[in-house]
Amino acid sequence: MTGPGSKAGVNRQVMVVRRAKGVPTPDCFQIVDSPVPQCPAGGVLLETLCAAVDPAMRGWLSEERNYMTVSDGEVMRAHGVGRVLESQDERWVPGDLAYGWLGWQRYAAVASSALLWPVDETVAPAPVWLSVLGLNGLTAWIGLNLLGRPVRGETIVVSAAAGGVGGLVGQLAAHRGLRAVGIAGGASKTELARTRLGFHVAVDYKAAAGDLGRELTRLLPDGVDIFFDNTAGPIADAVFPVLNGGARIVQCGTVAVPDWTTLPTGPRRERDILVKRLSWHGLVVFDHMARFEEAFADLKDLYRSGVLTARHDVLRGLDMAPGALGRLYDGTNNGRLMIDVGL
Amino acid sequence: MTGPGSKAGVNRQVMVVRRAKGVPTPDCFQIVDSPVPQCPAGGVLLETLCAAVDPAMRGWLSEERNYMTVSDGEVMRAHGVGRVLESQDERWVPGDLAYGWLGWQRYAAVASSALLWPVDETVAPAPVWLSVLGLNGLTAWIGLNLLGRPVRGETIVVSAAAGGVGGLVGQLAAHRGLRAVGIAGGASKTELARTRLGFHVAVDYKAAAGDLGRELTRLLPDGVDIFFDNTAGPIADAVFPVLNGGARIVQCGTVAVPDWTTLPTGPRRERDILVKRLSWHGLVVFDHMARFEEAFADLKDLYRSGVLTARHDVLRGLDMAPGALGRLYDGTNNGRLMIDVGL
Repeated sequence: MTGPGSKAGVNRQVMVVRRAKGVPTPDCFQIVDSPVPQCPAGGVLLETLCAAVDPAMRGWLSEERNYMTVSDGEVMRAHGVGRVLESQDERWVPGDLAYGWLGWQRYAAVASSALLWPVDETVAPAPVWLSVLGLNGLTAWIGLNLLGRPVRGETIVVSAAAGGVGGLVGQLAAHRGLRAVGIAGGASKTELARTRLGFHVAVDYKAAAGDLGRELTRLLPDGVDIFFDNTAGPIADAVFPVLNGGARIVQCGTVAVPDWTTLPTGPRRERDILVKRLSWHGLVVFDHMARFEEAFADLKDLYRSGVLTARHDVLRGLDMAPGALGRLYDGTNNGRLMIDVGL
Repeated sequence: MTGPGSKAGVNRQVMVVRRAKGVPTPDCFQIVDSPVPQCPAGGVLLETLCAAVDPAMRGWLSEERNYMTVSDGEVMRAHGVGRVLESQDERWVPGDLAYGWLGWQRYAAVASSALLWPVDETVAPAPVWLSVLGLNGLTAWIGLNLLGRPVRGETIVVSAAAGGVGGLVGQLAAHRGLRAVGIAGGASKTELARTRLGFHVAVDYKAAAGDLGRELTRLLPDGVDIFFDNTAGPIADAVFPVLNGGARIVQCGTVAVPDWTTLPTGPRRERDILVKRLSWHGLVVFDHMARFEEAFADLKDLYRSGVLTARHDVLRGLDMAPGALGRLYDGTNNGRLMIDVGL
């Protein structure tokens, strides 16, 4: 092993080798040791410190149409924070930290045209730039504020409440004066949601089993105004009946449905949508880049002032990457899942 | 029978006598002859000329939660145009025409607090105030412009294209520079949609049978940006796969699904909503009363200038009312269905 800051050795890379039907399994990836790349003309060479594991990755590896894809034979696309080793770009000098599409690999050659954001360790340590100050934070902020259109005193329900995005939505919503209700699986996650992630109430869908709908009706006699949904499937089915007229649904993920290659069936929603005048929006954060700067400034303030706290679930080493996506779907992760690459 | 303008005789009324499971059948109503009511203090007494038959009525008679209801033992709620016979309201004099909640009855006593709009026969004859210049027109205008957010050159698909609202959406959309595609059942309705209701293309879902999806894919290689849905069910299922990223769905009706008392199942939409960043809105026109004046002024201009034409399907006499709702669901009506009360 080579120490951080050195470009000696090899570039360990996690390549995509086949499409996934449903949740990508380890055999969709292959770990390859390649030569360390050259610094590209006008660009930078970085050493990856930590890299994200995202539910969105399932879609990128699916045969189904998606908003983004990763082809077989490519390094797995992932956001990461890295340290600049070499730079031919005047905006960067060796030693700088940066955030961008570094991929699941130890060394990343990044073209001058690629988006690379400065990471300021005086604001927060590197991993926080993959959670509160990264796409998770932006997704939570934009989904809640732009699509959820919250009004102080309203009730929001968040599924996958202990997850990387859900936990931030809870904290942001509580800060905005909403009553925040989290749904998560298991006692430790609901405990986490209630004590650390801003939720006033946390419901364990596993303990509730088939009675989640009844439990929500009992807990929420005044109904729900915003549903920030990360799961789809049976959890969403239990929330729909308690939605109020004019409720907004933010569809941020579908983690409870492992396979969409054959479209699963569920209760038809047209009547609810019509009678309750619902608004149901798909959230892909890249659609809202015009608002990133405003969101990011707010997230930084909220993190600095202690309103937002980061919850990380860290896997050690790239060798963990091929099996990492399964953890998002088997319910074992708490908070933002990432890989500590810089061992 | 008494002639128009006379308040002699009886008030024939269609009363609601039981809730409906699914589409209301004639036995949900009872025709009763009552005394002609007194003019209410401060209000007006009208003779109904024509009264609406609306898909929305199914919801009002359902046991399920709805945005509005009509109780057993009440006169069936309906919009109508009537002539003022007596007035204790300085805003109205006998002989005036007015539009409001007159109900399925020959004489309507309307309180001073109730909304009653003036009908100007120099702009359009009375029945047009139940279609282009009534709630159908407002629904089409608001659904298209406020929820559909159309951009010139985009493609809109409208289900129940020959219906009272659908036919107006086609005409409005074509006028706005959209490519308008109508879906209707049978050769005569598709012909009507194409030749009279503004649609550039009209698809016969009955002729396409199970291949409607393939037919839409063939006809719409560039996809669909707005889906104005009056049907839900299998027709909507065929449209979803051709929706473009960022498409807007306006849920205006669910006429293809006869019964929602037990929630029917269909393809889950969460993944489509997420990946394609769809926006799906329920449309109940009363939510948008702040925009009625603007919409109404535009509709009047468009009617006067011949851009919008009215298509009516008129049933003669209140005795036809109890069976009228079935016609909306068995696919036999063309255009705005109404009852000519003033025989």
